[in-house]
Amino acid sequence: MGIKLYFLRFEKENTVIMMIGVTSFLLTLGFFVWTSTGVSDVLWTPRIVDYKEDIDRHKRDADRIIDYLVTGAGKGVVYNNLAEMTDTYGYRLCGTQTLENVIDYMVDKLKKDGLDNVHKEPVNVTRWVRGNEWAKMLTPRVKPLSILGLGFSVGTPTSGVTAEVIVVRTFDELRDRAREVKGKIVVYNQVWENYGQSVEYRSQGGIEAAKLGAVAALVRSVTPLSINSPHTGQQSSDDWAKKIPTASITVEDAELMWRLSRRGINITVTLYMEAQNLSPVTSYNTVAEIKGSQYPEQVVLVSGHLDSWDVGQGAMDDGGGAFISWQALSVVRKLGLRPKRTLRVVLWTCEEEGIQGGQEYFRVHRNESTNMNIVMESDMGTFTPQGLLFTGSDQAMKIIKYLAATLLKRVNASNVAPDADLTDVFNWPSLGVPGASLKTDDASYFYYHHSQGDTMTVQDPDEMDLCSAVWAVTAYTLADLENMLPANRTISLK
Amino acid sequence: MGIKLYFLRFEKENTVIMMIGVTSFLLTLGFFVWTSTGVSDVLWTPRIVDYKEDIDRHKRDADRIIDYLVTGAGKGVVYNNLAEMTDTYGYRLCGTQTLENVIDYMVDKLKKDGLDNVHKEPVNVTRWVRGNEWAKMLTPRVKPLSILGLGFSVGTPTSGVTAEVIVVRTFDELRDRAREVKGKIVVYNQVWENYGQSVEYRSQGGIEAAKLGAVAALVRSVTPLSINSPHTGQQSSDDWAKKIPTASITVEDAELMWRLSRRGINITVTLYMEAQNLSPVTSYNTVAEIKGSQYPEQVVLVSGHLDSWDVGQGAMDDGGGAFISWQALSVVRKLGLRPKRTLRVVLWTCEEEGIQGGQEYFRVHRNESTNMNIVMESDMGTFTPQGLLFTGSDQAMKIIKYLAATLLKRVNASNVAPDADLTDVFNWPSLGVPGASLKTDDASYFYYHHSQGDTMTVQDPDEMDLCSAVWAVTAYTLADLENMLPANRTISLK
Repeated sequence: MGIKLYFLRFEKENTVIMMIGVTSFLLTLGFFVWTSTGVSDVLWTPRIVDYKEDIDRHKRDADRIIDYLVTGAGKGVVYNNLAEMTDTYGYRLCGTQTLENVIDYMVDKLKKDGLDNVHKEPVNVTRWVRGNEWAKMLTPRVKPLSILGLGFSVGTPTSGVTAEVIVVRTFDELRDRAREVKGKIVVYNQVWENYGQSVEYRSQGGIEAAKLGAVAALVRSVTPLSINSPHTGQQSSDDWAKKIPTASITVEDAELMWRLSRRGINITVTLYMEAQNLSPVTSYNTVAEIKGSQYPEQVVLVSGHLDSWDVGQGAMDDGGGAFISWQALSVVRKLGLRPKRTLRVVLWTCEEEGIQGGQEYFRVHRNESTNMNIVMESDMGTFTPQGLLFTGSDQAMKIIKYLAATLLKRVNASNVAPDADLTDVFNWPSLGVPGASLKTDDASYFYYHHSQGDTMTVQDPDEMDLCSAVWAVTAYTLADLENMLPANRTISLK
Repeated sequence: MGIKLYFLRFEKENTVIMMIGVTSFLLTLGFFVWTSTGVSDVLWTPRIVDYKEDIDRHKRDADRIIDYLVTGAGKGVVYNNLAEMTDTYGYRLCGTQTLENVIDYMVDKLKKDGLDNVHKEPVNVTRWVRGNEWAKMLTPRVKPLSILGLGFSVGTPTSGVTAEVIVVRTFDELRDRAREVKGKIVVYNQVWENYGQSVEYRSQGGIEAAKLGAVAALVRSVTPLSINSPHTGQQSSDDWAKKIPTASITVEDAELMWRLSRRGINITVTLYMEAQNLSPVTSYNTVAEIKGSQYPEQVVLVSGHLDSWDVGQGAMDDGGGAFISWQALSVVRKLGLRPKRTLRVVLWTCEEEGIQGGQEYFRVHRNESTNMNIVMESDMGTFTPQGLLFTGSDQAMKIIKYLAATLLKRVNASNVAPDADLTDVFNWPSLGVPGASLKTDDASYFYYHHSQGDTMTVQDPDEMDLCSAVWAVTAYTLADLENMLPANRTISLK
């Protein structure tokens, strides 16, 4: 074989390869154009139209659900159910017998409601106990400080911890003054900007103080409004969180100590805490269903968490979310509706101490993700609903918007915005599963959050009925549409 | 004298009498028409015009005061002064040494400010002490109740008072169930409508319960918003107020017990209080002046009360009012202004326990009422000012409105409305003396009122500067106008 012939043959083969390459390139380019320019939307239109027609067909069922909850036999029921539970049991701290008693009480209620497959799923949970605790400023004058120890914190010696205070506003300031920290009590007086920013000081304040040799840390409560009310919460999961006693103090006392320190006045504080981290115990997620009539293996999951902090009644965080999720299934059953897909309610355990119930559920059930149509959680209060927050593909977002505009307009809850608060179901979007949470008028949520003020007084029966209506209509309709939400499960989600 | 002559004479006399009668009637009618139809206003116009021109001439002084306080050397001073006092001393309960220490501290501050005639005027005051106190619900479950004993209340035996609870929403309901009250603890769960309505239950709740044989009374706190925060306060002055222990409970706990009782559940509560009414002591109103240059015997009085309840810092009630009143004189002195009339600041003692300082001052000084141009008090918070509330004659109201429109527009505080909150100076309008208070954006005032939340956190430096400006401009201008306010001192006032 001469060299020319070889070239000829090579060119021939090369042409074939090039043709394959060019074709592949054009296909790839076409796909990008398709997906990025909206051409896909146009071509997807028939599919969206199918959903639209399907949603339109659910107007009657949606109206029946709304009527039942807002003016019918269901009016006020969810509030009364929640009041009965919280008035009877009070708060439900992770690892306590009270939480387990409430889980059993809920199993009983769900069964009495005639729901299917009512059961508990075990979760190995941490057990942190508060015990007695108090603090007082000794100098420049004696003043009691209202405190709430933070989750994971250790206690003090029985004589308490007495030390001079160093007050800072930011972690940067703490680092700048690192050499002053050793042997002191660090007081954080971070300014409230929003929950996300301020909560860093609750999560990391004790840890950063411990690393610099502080003997204790006191963190300004994470709230925009205070009536000298401390707000508890969890610290980050880090061994350093268990090194020194750490508690929240009130906005008022943090500002007082800040002002005194700015005047060059020495402040001394005594802190006493009996907090302990005990050995883990078994708790349970509580599950109930309405089995789907056509695609029972496919699931719409609605949820809230049953546990709470050990203050107030946990009526808002998250009694309301848990109970409207139960109510969503309850109303579907009571009206004799039977969706094609399975409607599942999960009442999570031990959300407050690190989403323990939610993470265990994901670990056990993640292999069912292709059948998980949507995961929904309400954990930001059940105030007047405005609509839904949604995490999912653009296509799915369009469907949710159409659903809200069509079926939730009657209750003024047609507003759909991105970025659901998914809490216990936060992992599922990483597998392409869409998620939704309630969008409510929640401006006052953090006034009461993790404080003694989280009681039934925050709840309003009419607002809760409206939230139940939004929750039930959305969940039932998505469970009964012919198709699952276009999940775009392999493409990254918002 | 025949009968005809007699009649003739009678008729003659009668005519004279009739003429006097008719004239009197016409004069009276004319007076009514004058005062009721606005004819008087028209005829008063020249006088008003005089005032207007005089007020216009004060624009420059008013602007200097505003500049000094809002952007000049006085910016932030009143906030810092108040913070220093409240941070150093904390609350200032009537009858305590702390209050007396603060009175002496203020005398020193007023003297250092170069004010005239700084002195204290004695007041014999009651002395109520709280001591330790706590309460808990024993059945249907054990739950601590946050309480604050109410003024005049007696304590419990050292073993506390344990009894079944009867929960009512209104006094009518209490009377309907009068036969059930004996031996029980009455819990009032009155709905919040407004302060005036709800405070009746704090004032009279213990008294009405005692009359029916109750062993204690627990009154829902008087507030539209709660984070499980009890609010203390005074009961009516009545011997029955000292018969049984009476405390405030939180809105949340009152509603909890109400719901439980509506379900037919028996509630038992233990209440422990060490409250005592001790023998009276001497306290003092604190007085300072800027002597008038032309009419020193004529007075414009600005005021707030220095005492507070024994919770929080008393920064809002009424640290703010007291300190802007001091600041009003301070700025006039610092700017070298000298009004024609005397500017007097009075810092009242023991307002909270029944306006004791204010009533004693009225008793001693009421004979000076014809020289009292206006009495002003700020005791509803120093939030963003909107203008003034005014009690006085229609003529005086017009002058105040013109003053506010002309001199306070720059600080958006031109709104003048009737019915001043006069608190410690409430008696003076009965002698025809006009009164004024601050009109502020005080929607949140009762969130913090008489609670642990009454601290510097409620105060905003800029808002306090604006309040000082309104207070100083109004007081100085009224002290410097050529004429006193037309007081209409013998006619009933609004």
